[in-house]
Amino acid sequence: MLLLRRVCFLLLPSPSPPRAPLAKPLPPLLRPPRTLPSAARPLASMAAPAAMSRDAFRAAVTNTLERRLFFVPSFKIYGGVAGLYDYGPPGCAVKANVLAFWRQHFVLEEGMLEVDCPCVTPEVVLKASGHVDKFTDLMVKDEKTGNCYRADHLLKDFCKDKLEKDQTLSPEQAEEYNKILAILDDLSAEQLGAKIKEYGIVAPDTKNPLSDPYPFNLMFQTSIGPSGLSPGYMRPETAQGIFVNFKDLYYYNGNKLPFAAAQIGQAFRNEISPRQGLLRVREFTLAEIEHFVDPEDKSHPKFCDVSDLEFLMFPREDQMAGRSATRLKLGNAVSEGTVNNETLGYFIGRVYLFLTQLGIDKDRLRFRQHLPNEMAHYAADCWDAEIECSYGWIECVGIADRSAYDLRAHSDKSGEKLEAHEKFAEPREVEKLVITPSKKELGLAFKGNQRMVLEALEAMGETEALEMKAALESKGEVEFKVCTLGKDVTIKKNMVSINIEKKKEHQRKFTPSVIEPSFGIGRIIYCLFEHCFYQRPGKAEDEQLNVFGFPPLVAPIKCTVFPLVKLEKFEVVAKKISKALTAAGISHIIDMTGNTIGKRYARTDELGVPLAITVDNTTSVTVRDRDSKDQIRVEVDEVASVAKEVTDGQSTWADIMWRYPTHTASVAEDEAEP
Amino acid sequence: MLLLRRVCFLLLPSPSPPRAPLAKPLPPLLRPPRTLPSAARPLASMAAPAAMSRDAFRAAVTNTLERRLFFVPSFKIYGGVAGLYDYGPPGCAVKANVLAFWRQHFVLEEGMLEVDCPCVTPEVVLKASGHVDKFTDLMVKDEKTGNCYRADHLLKDFCKDKLEKDQTLSPEQAEEYNKILAILDDLSAEQLGAKIKEYGIVAPDTKNPLSDPYPFNLMFQTSIGPSGLSPGYMRPETAQGIFVNFKDLYYYNGNKLPFAAAQIGQAFRNEISPRQGLLRVREFTLAEIEHFVDPEDKSHPKFCDVSDLEFLMFPREDQMAGRSATRLKLGNAVSEGTVNNETLGYFIGRVYLFLTQLGIDKDRLRFRQHLPNEMAHYAADCWDAEIECSYGWIECVGIADRSAYDLRAHSDKSGEKLEAHEKFAEPREVEKLVITPSKKELGLAFKGNQRMVLEALEAMGETEALEMKAALESKGEVEFKVCTLGKDVTIKKNMVSINIEKKKEHQRKFTPSVIEPSFGIGRIIYCLFEHCFYQRPGKAEDEQLNVFGFPPLVAPIKCTVFPLVKLEKFEVVAKKISKALTAAGISHIIDMTGNTIGKRYARTDELGVPLAITVDNTTSVTVRDRDSKDQIRVEVDEVASVAKEVTDGQSTWADIMWRYPTHTASVAEDEAEP
Repeated sequence: MLLLRRVCFLLLPSPSPPRAPLAKPLPPLLRPPRTLPSAARPLASMAAPAAMSRDAFRAAVTNTLERRLFFVPSFKIYGGVAGLYDYGPPGCAVKANVLAFWRQHFVLEEGMLEVDCPCVTPEVVLKASGHVDKFTDLMVKDEKTGNCYRADHLLKDFCKDKLEKDQTLSPEQAEEYNKILAILDDLSAEQLGAKIKEYGIVAPDTKNPLSDPYPFNLMFQTSIGPSGLSPGYMRPETAQGIFVNFKDLYYYNGNKLPFAAAQIGQAFRNEISPRQGLLRVREFTLAEIEHFVDPEDKSHPKFCDVSDLEFLMFPREDQMAGRSATRLKLGNAVSEGTVNNETLGYFIGRVYLFLTQLGIDKDRLRFRQHLPNEMAHYAADCWDAEIECSYGWIECVGIADRSAYDLRAHSDKSGEKLEAHEKFAEPREVEKLVITPSKKELGLAFKGNQRMVLEALEAMGETEALEMKAALESKGEVEFKVCTLGKDVTIKKNMVSINIEKKKEHQRKFTPSVIEPSFGIGRIIYCLFEHCFYQRPGKAEDEQLNVFGFPPLVAPIKCTVFPLVKLEKFEVVAKKISKALTAAGISHIIDMTGNTIGKRYARTDELGVPLAITVDNTTSVTVRDRDSKDQIRVEVDEVASVAKEVTDGQSTWADIMWRYPTHTASVAEDEAEP
Repeated sequence: MLLLRRVCFLLLPSPSPPRAPLAKPLPPLLRPPRTLPSAARPLASMAAPAAMSRDAFRAAVTNTLERRLFFVPSFKIYGGVAGLYDYGPPGCAVKANVLAFWRQHFVLEEGMLEVDCPCVTPEVVLKASGHVDKFTDLMVKDEKTGNCYRADHLLKDFCKDKLEKDQTLSPEQAEEYNKILAILDDLSAEQLGAKIKEYGIVAPDTKNPLSDPYPFNLMFQTSIGPSGLSPGYMRPETAQGIFVNFKDLYYYNGNKLPFAAAQIGQAFRNEISPRQGLLRVREFTLAEIEHFVDPEDKSHPKFCDVSDLEFLMFPREDQMAGRSATRLKLGNAVSEGTVNNETLGYFIGRVYLFLTQLGIDKDRLRFRQHLPNEMAHYAADCWDAEIECSYGWIECVGIADRSAYDLRAHSDKSGEKLEAHEKFAEPREVEKLVITPSKKELGLAFKGNQRMVLEALEAMGETEALEMKAALESKGEVEFKVCTLGKDVTIKKNMVSINIEKKKEHQRKFTPSVIEPSFGIGRIIYCLFEHCFYQRPGKAEDEQLNVFGFPPLVAPIKCTVFPLVKLEKFEVVAKKISKALTAAGISHIIDMTGNTIGKRYARTDELGVPLAITVDNTTSVTVRDRDSKDQIRVEVDEVASVAKEVTDGQSTWADIMWRYPTHTASVAEDEAEP
C-alpha cells in the first residue's frame, strides 16, 4: 500500500541499476503549463531558466509557496514540528479542488462506495494487518545525546557523499557504494549495522558513536478510553477501515462482485527524522480505493475506454536490464502480460487521466512496476505512478493487486468470514477431495496419539493428499509428518482412504482479490506545484515574476475583479460582476487597492488565478488570460458566463479568444505588461 | 468552543429552572419534511405515529440508518470500540454534501481564509490554550474491577431514576434531586464525591464501591518523533491551528481587519464512557470559524441581510425566569442588546440559514444564550444553536465572542506578538497614563525590596493608578499591595508621580477579538437524520415504510433510474439517461433488478433519493417525487435537465409539476403505491 508497507516503499527507487543521484540531465524545469495552446506559450521567457539548477528551482517554488501561504510549517510561532505542515488559504483551496475532482473522477464516475472511518484504531486491527509487528524503520541512536536517526538514511548519505565529493575514489569503491545504494532497502538490521561500523559512520550532528540499528514502529501510539488498558494507534493508512467493513459493503452492493470502496482521510506515521518538505510528513491525506474482484475473473468492462492511452511505463524487465522507461500503449501492456490483468490496467489508465487532467506534466509522469524484491509475497503485481520533481522521481500513487491477503488476515484474526459467493445458474459438477481416516486402525496403531494423526490427515491439502494416495497405492505405506506430535509416523493403506469424488455444487465461496490504487494527496499536490510553476521577466531589469499555471480545475481562485482606478462607477460594476460570479459559483476576489494593474496581475499570477477581469469601462471590461497575457473585451453582462465557460473547462482560452475583440491599446494593458 | 471547553458544554441544558427530563409533551416526531409544499404532504400517514415514543422513534431511525449503512459501529468484526463510528456510503455522501454546502455558505460566500492544519499537536500549544490543564472530566473508578465512569453521569442517572421511578419520593426530595440536576455541571470534585457517598451510589455494573472523583484529561496523548521526549496530543478542536497562524493570515489579508479564517477537520476526545450514539463520540468532524474583529468595532456590513430573520431564541433572562424560548427578530435582539453585537448576530443569522437550508426543522431549532455560570470569564457573549431530537435539545453549533483570550494566551506563551494595528489617517492626540516612580525615595524607604515595589507600581492598571493618585492627593499616603512581596506597603506622595499626559499617536495596536462559530458536523447530521425521517403505510397490512425526506441539497443520491421491466429497449434508454445525468453531474443509481417497481421505490425512499425515473416507454418516462409520490411524464431527452433543475434547487417539485402531464394510470404507479 502506498507510503505504508515498507517493502513497497522507495522514495528514490530504481534499485537496479543504480543511478548516480542528480547526475542525469535536467528536464526543462521552468516550462509553461501544458494546458496552453502552443501558440500562446510565452516561449521567449522560458529560455534562460532552463539552466536553473534543481536546488535553485526548488528554492524558488518553495519560497513562493510559503510566502503566499500555500503552506507553512505548522506551529511556527512555537518553533514548528518537523514533518507537520499547514495548508494556508490557497493551498487549502487547491487541496479541496484536487479532492473534489478525485471524488468526481473515481467515486462518482465509477459508482464506488465511499466510507469514512475514524483515525483512532484499536490495536487488534493493526495487529491483523501486520502493522504492529512490521511497520517499522531501522533506527540508530547517538550513544551520548540519544538523538535518533534512520539507519538507512545515514548509510545512504555517506555513500552519496563519497560518490559526489571524494575525488580519490577508486572504481572498485565507487562500485561498492553504488551497489549499497541499490540494495539499501533490502538490508537487515545486522547488515546495516555492520556497514555503519565498517565505514565508521557517526552521528552527523555530534560525531558521537551510534548504537546498533533496531526497529522503531512508525505508528503514533495512544490509549483508547480512560483505563489505559486498550492500546490504539493513529491509522497509518485508510485501507483497513474498508477491509473490516467488507461484509457490510458486499451486502450493500447486493452481494455482487466486483465493487470498489473508497476512502479519503488523514493517515499518520511517526517518521524518525522527516526530510524532503511536503513529501515526507508525519500526517497526510490519503485517498484509497479497494476494488474487490473475483480472483478468477479480473477483466474490466470499461477497459476499452483506456486501452488506447499511451504513456511512459517502466516494466520490471526494463529496470533490471538498465533500460529506461518507454511509451507503451496500455492495451498492449495488458494483452502482452506486462500488466497482470485488465482491472489493474484499467486503474493505471484512470490514474493517468486523473493526474494529467489535474495538471501533472505527462512527460514527467511514469508508471514503474515493482521489482520482485519490492513486492510483498502475496502481491500479484504492483505499479507506482511516479512523478518527477526536483527531488527525483517520487512515488505518488501505488496501484497494487494485493490478492486475497488483507481480507484473509482479518478473517483469520476476527473469526468473521470475509468471503464472496457466486451462485451458479445451474448446479455444477465438481471434483472434490474426500479424505476418510479409519478411526479404528489409527487407534490401534497410535493409541493416545490417534486424534493428532487423524486431524493431521484431514487437514492435508490436495497435492499432499494425492501424493499420499499414490504412495500408499504403490508402496502400501508412507512416512507422514504430524506437526502437533513433532515427529513422523508411518501411515498404512488401511488407515485412510483418499478419493476424488464428483459432487454437485450450487455455489462457490471464495475470498475476493483486492486491487488497490492508493493516492498520496500531499505528494501529488507538491508535484503539481512544481509542474505548474514558471517565471517570466517583469518590468524592472532582472525582475522575475512567478506564475503558477494551474489548470482552472485546481486553481485556488478562478478569477479576480480589478477596478482599473478608484472610481465609484468602476466599483459599482465590479460589485455587479462579483455578484454574478458568486451566483455562477465561481470563486473570485475583488482587489480594490490602488496598486497599478500590473502589480495586481503579478500578485494574482503568483496565486495561479487563471482569469483577471479589469473594469476599465462601465459597459464592457477587459478579460486577461494568465499564461498568454492575451486580453479580450467582453460586455459586463456576459463576463460571468465567459468566466464560467473557461473555469468549468467547457472551453479553453483559445476557444474564447476568437469570439471576442482583442484588447490591444489601453492603460490597463500598458501598465500590465510593459 | 463547541464540545470542547467544559465550562460551555451542556448536553441537556436549561440548568435553571430544572426540567423533569422527558416529561414535557413530545413534538410530532414523525412529520413530513418541511421542504414539501403543504398540499403534497402525505398527511394521512402521519396521524398514527404522532403518539410514538421517543425511544421507539429513535429505534426506528437508528435501525434504518444502520441497516442501510448510513453509519455502523467501527471495527464491528472485532467487537467495535465505544464512541467510534464509520459512515457507510449514503452517510458519507450526506456528510460530503453537508461539508460542501458549509464551504459554499461560509467560506466562499464570506470570503473566509480556509486552512488545513494537522491533528497531531505538540504539548506547548495545548498548554497555552489551557487544554492540558483544564480539558478534563471527573472520573470515578470501580474500586475492585478498575472500570471507569463519569462521576456526573452516575449522579445524574441516580437523580433521574429517583425522579422517574420512585413513587415514595417526598416533594422535598424531588426538589433536591431537581436542584442537583440543575447545578450538576458546577459541582467540584469534592462536592460530587460527597453526593455520591451520601446517596450510596455504587458501580452500575458490579455494585462495587467507587473511588473519589478525580480529573481525567480527555485528550488522546501520543509522542511525536522517536525519542519519547516530545509529548503531543490529537487536537481536541481545530481552532488552535488558526490562532497560531494569526500573524500570517492577517498579513495574507493585507493587514486588515475584520477577516475570518475557517477550518474543517477531525477532532478527538477520549471520552470516559461514550453514550448517546452519534452525539457523543471519541472522534468527530468539526468545522470552525474564527472571525477576527476590532474589539472597538463589532459592527458587520452585511448584518442587514439577516436582520429581518425571525426564529426561536432563548435569552439568558428567559431561561432564568423559567420562561420558554420565543420567536425574536434578529435585528431587534441585537439593537436591544440581547445579543452582544452585530457580528455575533450576523453569524447567528447565517447559522440559522445554514441549518434550515440543510433540512433542520426550524420549529425544533433554537438559539440559547449561555448562562453566566456556563461562560468562560473572558467571553463577551455566547449562543448555542440547539436542535431538538429524541435525546432532547442538543448543542450543535456554538457561537461565541471569546474576546482576545486565545490570541493573548498564544502571544504570552510563544513570545510572538499576535496583534493587529490600525494606522490613523492623521495622528491622534491620546491621553496616556504615565507612572514615574522615584527610585531614590523608594530605595530609602524599602531598601532591598525597592525593585519589587517599583515594578508593582509600574504594572498598575489605569483605574488602580488613578485611585492611588486621588488618594495620594487627598491623604498624602496609601496602602499598596505588592504581590511579589506578599504584603502591603505604604506609598507616600513623594515616591511616585502619576499623570495623564497627552500624546500624538500614529497608530494603535491591539489584540483582536475573535467571534467563533463552531459546528459539530456529526451532531448536525444525526439531527438531520431524525428531522428528515418519517414512516408511511406500505402495501401489506401494518407495514410501515421508512422515508428519509432529505432536501436534494443533502440527499446522498439525487436520482434513480429504473427500467420498469427487464427489456433491452428499456435498458438502452436507462443507460442513455444515466449518461445524461452523469454529464449534468447528478449522482444517481440504475437499478436493473427484477424487483417490482414498488419495492424499488421503497428501497430508495429509505435512502432519501428525491427523484425516481422509471423507464416505461422509449420516448417518455415517468418521474416520481419521493415525498408526495406524485408522478409526471417527461420526454427522455428532457429528463436530465428536469432532474438537474430540481436537485440543484433552482425549482421545487411543485414548480415542475404543473409544467408536465401528470402520470396517473400505468403499471408503474399501480405497482408502486397501491
